[in-house]
Amino acid sequence: MNRRRVTVVGLLTLLAAFLSSLYAGAQTDPLPSWNDGPAKQRIVKFVQAVTDPASPDHVPAEQRIATFDNDGTLWIEQPMYVQLAFALDRVKALAPTHPEWRQRQPFKAVLDGNMKALAASGDRGLLQLIATTHAGMTTEEFDAIVRGWLATARHPRFQRPYTDLVYQPMLELLTYLRAHGFKTYIVSGGGIDFMRPWAEQVYGIPPEQVIGSTLKLRFAMRDGRPVLLRLPEIAFIDDKVGKPVGIHTFIGRRPVAAFGNSDGDLQMLQWTAAGEGARLMALVHHTDGEREWAYDRQSHVGRLDKALDEARARGWLVIDMKKDWKVIFPFQR
Amino acid sequence: MNRRRVTVVGLLTLLAAFLSSLYAGAQTDPLPSWNDGPAKQRIVKFVQAVTDPASPDHVPAEQRIATFDNDGTLWIEQPMYVQLAFALDRVKALAPTHPEWRQRQPFKAVLDGNMKALAASGDRGLLQLIATTHAGMTTEEFDAIVRGWLATARHPRFQRPYTDLVYQPMLELLTYLRAHGFKTYIVSGGGIDFMRPWAEQVYGIPPEQVIGSTLKLRFAMRDGRPVLLRLPEIAFIDDKVGKPVGIHTFIGRRPVAAFGNSDGDLQMLQWTAAGEGARLMALVHHTDGEREWAYDRQSHVGRLDKALDEARARGWLVIDMKKDWKVIFPFQR
Repeated sequence: MNRRRVTVVGLLTLLAAFLSSLYAGAQTDPLPSWNDGPAKQRIVKFVQAVTDPASPDHVPAEQRIATFDNDGTLWIEQPMYVQLAFALDRVKALAPTHPEWRQRQPFKAVLDGNMKALAASGDRGLLQLIATTHAGMTTEEFDAIVRGWLATARHPRFQRPYTDLVYQPMLELLTYLRAHGFKTYIVSGGGIDFMRPWAEQVYGIPPEQVIGSTLKLRFAMRDGRPVLLRLPEIAFIDDKVGKPVGIHTFIGRRPVAAFGNSDGDLQMLQWTAAGEGARLMALVHHTDGEREWAYDRQSHVGRLDKALDEARARGWLVIDMKKDWKVIFPFQR
Repeated sequence: MNRRRVTVVGLLTLLAAFLSSLYAGAQTDPLPSWNDGPAKQRIVKFVQAVTDPASPDHVPAEQRIATFDNDGTLWIEQPMYVQLAFALDRVKALAPTHPEWRQRQPFKAVLDGNMKALAASGDRGLLQLIATTHAGMTTEEFDAIVRGWLATARHPRFQRPYTDLVYQPMLELLTYLRAHGFKTYIVSGGGIDFMRPWAEQVYGIPPEQVIGSTLKLRFAMRDGRPVLLRLPEIAFIDDKVGKPVGIHTFIGRRPVAAFGNSDGDLQMLQWTAAGEGARLMALVHHTDGEREWAYDRQSHVGRLDKALDEARARGWLVIDMKKDWKVIFPFQR
């Protein structure tokens, strides 16, 4: 391209960008499902500060990492973690070829719908469930199983696909952050391969930005074609102290913003807070027993106790679902 | 923004893009350090095919993942892996505070410069070296140690910083692929935290796109501030069968292009080749004993034997450094 042509193209591009920015003030509210309260104001103020090149809080675009817990932060986790519902359904689907399960725990408990007996089987029972329902197949086969289950499974209360039960205000927040140069990541205790099949379509988060717990994988040749086999052995648990480890290992940068909802997110928020410069640490507090569920310190699912104390002591943002959110789910708009 | 203003901005943007594309044919050669031979032609043809929306080989931008081995593919690995040179230098630097090392292997071998005795210490000796030189500090401390070493260490033959000894034609290839919508990743057997401090500056590859071997990390509080401690225990070896595992775990997508130089890259190339649609699998063959090193089947460092056979049998691209590259290093331009 010669110099004059470069100049013409450059000028036109600049002119377009200038006109675009001129009228940006007239753009619609990027967080329409958030009530105009302190939570929304604080989020918007943070994003304006870190993206304004003239602000002392400015953060270069490549360092704008925002991490989100998944269960209870981006989608529903009551009355049980979605991945547990998946595991229980898988046991039922596989039961006809395993008649011995009728007499063996933890499978008997699952087939009898006896949640008390299932809980009594403890960590050992849970690991057996994972080994049976999440391992023993290739990564491609597991991907198809997850997609198939999500297409037909329905949430017991809302009678909708689980992927409908994501939080509309958080979807808007993800879009808003990305529009301001943030790279949005999921950092979840859930299985990485349970989230990746649908996270891009539902959250706009591509597979390479989904961090979660992993099983060991074994490379093998099957009919001359390489496959990765899922082994019944946990490689990494991306929860509690595991979250900063997962963040460091997968991203290698410290987030400037982190969102969680339970004690499992405490260390992620501490790790985020310990960086220099402007930071945003936030907890989604489940306060809406009518529209969703109200739970915190006493809950077995998504317990929020120590992290709530620390959030209040340190001035982290606590998002009150009942007060701060106009709607909970996309279908309620 | 009202409708008319949107239209004006949109038209100007389109016009700029159109003028830009009109003169794109006149742009300079994106791979100037590559001789005009079959290797360069094949790379360019592949990139044109996968980026042309009208081509049957078109690949959507989000699926354009290209993975690169590091040692021997992007930078020098002779006369020893750079990370081994780092470990040996660290032993020497730490020796004054460890007088017992003068009598203990593998440290004695390192301090005596006795590479034969070092090799005889085997995997156990290597793990002790790693534990001593790569563990026992926080991730931030290790980052500073790596940066400090790279700033002063010099390659024994070229008497230059190791980060000067990257392959100019591969730097051009990285830039060329990124300009065509590819996301470029390092997938190396080397330590992830040994590469991340400099990969962005040297290769334009950000930390979150560097995959490598990892140590176990422990989250801890130090003076009220969270840190990640590097433990003397390997968590994951990102080499050979580990490379597809690392790719699946970190990226969650199969690459459409993969570049290696040794048998350690064979499974990564097999995994890449097994996907559907257009693929590019390539090996950098070290054939230039004058300008760099010539080695393959008999080498202890970067042995290329089985992967060379498979590349020839399956028609993968074999890049001949002597014939295909005009220069090896950036400072030779």
